[in-house]
Amino acid sequence: MPTALSTDLYELTMAAGYYAAGMNDVATFELYVRDLPPHRSFLVAAGLEQALEHLERLRFTNEEIAYLRQTPNLNGVPKAFFDECLKHFRFTGDVWGIEEGTPVFPYEPLLRVRAPIIEAQLVETALLATITFETSVASKAARVVEAAAGRPVIEFGSRRAHGVGAALHAARAAYLGGCEGTSNVEAGFRFGIPVSGTMAHSWVMAFGDELEAFRQYASLYGERAVLLLDTYDVIEAARRVVSSGLRPSAIRLDSGDTVELSRRVRAILDEGGLRATGIFVSGDLDEYRIADLLKRGAVVNGFGVGTALATSNDAPALGGIYKLAEIRRGGSVVPTMKLSPGKQSYPGCKQAWRVYERGVAAYDVLSVCDESGPPGGAALLKTVMTRGRRTEATLPLADLRRRCRRLVGELPASLRRIDGASAYQVAISDRLGEVTKKIAAEGPGAAEA
Amino acid sequence: MPTALSTDLYELTMAAGYYAAGMNDVATFELYVRDLPPHRSFLVAAGLEQALEHLERLRFTNEEIAYLRQTPNLNGVPKAFFDECLKHFRFTGDVWGIEEGTPVFPYEPLLRVRAPIIEAQLVETALLATITFETSVASKAARVVEAAAGRPVIEFGSRRAHGVGAALHAARAAYLGGCEGTSNVEAGFRFGIPVSGTMAHSWVMAFGDELEAFRQYASLYGERAVLLLDTYDVIEAARRVVSSGLRPSAIRLDSGDTVELSRRVRAILDEGGLRATGIFVSGDLDEYRIADLLKRGAVVNGFGVGTALATSNDAPALGGIYKLAEIRRGGSVVPTMKLSPGKQSYPGCKQAWRVYERGVAAYDVLSVCDESGPPGGAALLKTVMTRGRRTEATLPLADLRRRCRRLVGELPASLRRIDGASAYQVAISDRLGEVTKKIAAEGPGAAEA
Repeated sequence: MPTALSTDLYELTMAAGYYAAGMNDVATFELYVRDLPPHRSFLVAAGLEQALEHLERLRFTNEEIAYLRQTPNLNGVPKAFFDECLKHFRFTGDVWGIEEGTPVFPYEPLLRVRAPIIEAQLVETALLATITFETSVASKAARVVEAAAGRPVIEFGSRRAHGVGAALHAARAAYLGGCEGTSNVEAGFRFGIPVSGTMAHSWVMAFGDELEAFRQYASLYGERAVLLLDTYDVIEAARRVVSSGLRPSAIRLDSGDTVELSRRVRAILDEGGLRATGIFVSGDLDEYRIADLLKRGAVVNGFGVGTALATSNDAPALGGIYKLAEIRRGGSVVPTMKLSPGKQSYPGCKQAWRVYERGVAAYDVLSVCDESGPPGGAALLKTVMTRGRRTEATLPLADLRRRCRRLVGELPASLRRIDGASAYQVAISDRLGEVTKKIAAEGPGAAEA
Repeated sequence: MPTALSTDLYELTMAAGYYAAGMNDVATFELYVRDLPPHRSFLVAAGLEQALEHLERLRFTNEEIAYLRQTPNLNGVPKAFFDECLKHFRFTGDVWGIEEGTPVFPYEPLLRVRAPIIEAQLVETALLATITFETSVASKAARVVEAAAGRPVIEFGSRRAHGVGAALHAARAAYLGGCEGTSNVEAGFRFGIPVSGTMAHSWVMAFGDELEAFRQYASLYGERAVLLLDTYDVIEAARRVVSSGLRPSAIRLDSGDTVELSRRVRAILDEGGLRATGIFVSGDLDEYRIADLLKRGAVVNGFGVGTALATSNDAPALGGIYKLAEIRRGGSVVPTMKLSPGKQSYPGCKQAWRVYERGVAAYDVLSVCDESGPPGGAALLKTVMTRGRRTEATLPLADLRRRCRRLVGELPASLRRIDGASAYQVAISDRLGEVTKKIAAEGPGAAEA
């Protein structure tokens, strides 16, 4: 359940500070990343749906307010902050976002939040956690799916996820990023994602007799059954399947030398007349192992990928930031920027544009948000919430997934390679460049729009 | 909210399979890891509380059952599986666990579940996700706290966590593993963990004038205020603090050359009479960077650590497994083991013992669970749930944390080093060795206890 307490304490100490100072001017924050993780050439935006849900539903319960009231760090805060500000807290701001499934690059705002600063500040932590996590997983999924070269990839990572909530949202993001389905049943129930699964080693061990275990499973699931061959000895198990007369839809290999085993099993199945039975492979896979298996001649019809997808294990966090871009101060809107080394930002409210040439994404432009953008450029950020209410229903997840596959397919081929990150140009518009220079020269918070 | 759908589909297809086969014998599963992540010499057990909560509360709602009924993968499953088995589903088994905060090693069962196989199987996914995630974070926290050499470490990683649920439980696990507190307010509310926080760059930017921002903050929080110095220029900001007459409890550095900046800031504060004002450092820290900063002479009174704690970023998943150890079959209890290469397990129900010599943990022993254990050995697994109900209240989290610090302190010093993993002996008892040999020789599932 979304709770307004899903936040860092400093969001609340600052909120109380703004309240005490009588300062609740409208501020604009932008959420983006400064760098891509190693080996990545792009990210796939995800998590917007959960972020908007959080904003719509967030409240402080009486118990939560009672807890905050006695928190030592909030000693001295005006009583009205608890009794008025928190008690009636609602998110009432406007939000722009990049549609889920869109490839994105550093400095492009995934989300722009414009609200009274107390509200805009308070939601920072939850927005970052929600959006950067799903974006990490969707981005990883796009890579894994690319490596599988047309073979279906199923997300199998729930047990490796950071708790059951993370498992649910990893399943969603992996599907969005291109997986065919997930093993996570809650994700099927909540998001309509196709669910699939095979059997565990424990099923085979529970029966003791492997063939009996296979027969029992097939008696229930018939030709939909996927039989797991590596509890004891893969080759013997494959022969057992053939001689049993069972006709499983697929067999699964989860350990051992996949290249050799898959070829031998394929031969056994083919000789036994089970040409339609696929070989499904799992077990510590990621985009690199999948590419390597295929390159070395493994015979595989589909992949189950767990840890790599559910935790984006080689890049388990994005350095997402939520930066104050502008604030209304004394009647004017003041663009703001941070000057600390290595952490500089572009001032003011921004828009990102994508320019295509012959059907391929050629470059993006980051502009001041009220600019008209480059000729032929498509604006990436769209209004998704007005005064705390969503402005339109989002596309069904399956459509977002198809759109993602199409947009990733329209990136330059060099960006889709899984080995060796490739750069993509995100140009700064002339106007944004001028504003940045002006403010950097005038010093912090000096310029006015 | 815990839902029984937080599971992999195959747990349900197998459950239906057991149900259809009229097979719901009592089975024992054990949850453990086979290997330590790189650079780790031990793990800190965590997540038991959330795991037991999941077991106690798990149900299928009518809507969930309706969803499952129409899931293509469960076509052909007997109607009674939905109407009887799932509708009235409760976890009714017995559970043993290693107390949270205990250092643990590979092959030691963190959890042992004994229940009718349908129940025991169905909970696998959620138990693994819950326990291995918190164990990863608590283990990482023990390392970070070790590196900080007595200085307090605060968990600051909520925004980098895998969603808001992961943020909450990371905060809990990091505290359990030795952190002094967290920035996560929900963790304070739910678990009574001390919360703390400073201010963000956006606070300074919102005021435009840095000194004004500091004054406003201090006017509310007085000598509890922690002022962030690196929005524009750290040294200038430190001078501003001194000349302002403010007396903050600490200042925070979040970027730049921490060694040099901390020394210069310390000197400025000292010369300005602010000897009591501490220096708190954050910004992409982990155990290695903390050790390096201290070695190079950084002057630091406390650390805020985010990504490294909230995601255990260098080892974001443990290869936790949940293995069938024994099953009742035709009146006898049959120990089971898996033989696939690299994935072998020890058969039967097991206990882990720790033997101390002169106050230091000397070695552990893995035994058959009804053995008496080595002389002077303390059994690590204890009954925590009987027939689906918890048997005793767990210690308060603060006590578990203190106990963890003590137990980690009783490990050999070589294991506590953060650089270069060191091995610790987990011996196999004679009886367990014999059973393993016997079953491996007789082949799968053949032996009977």
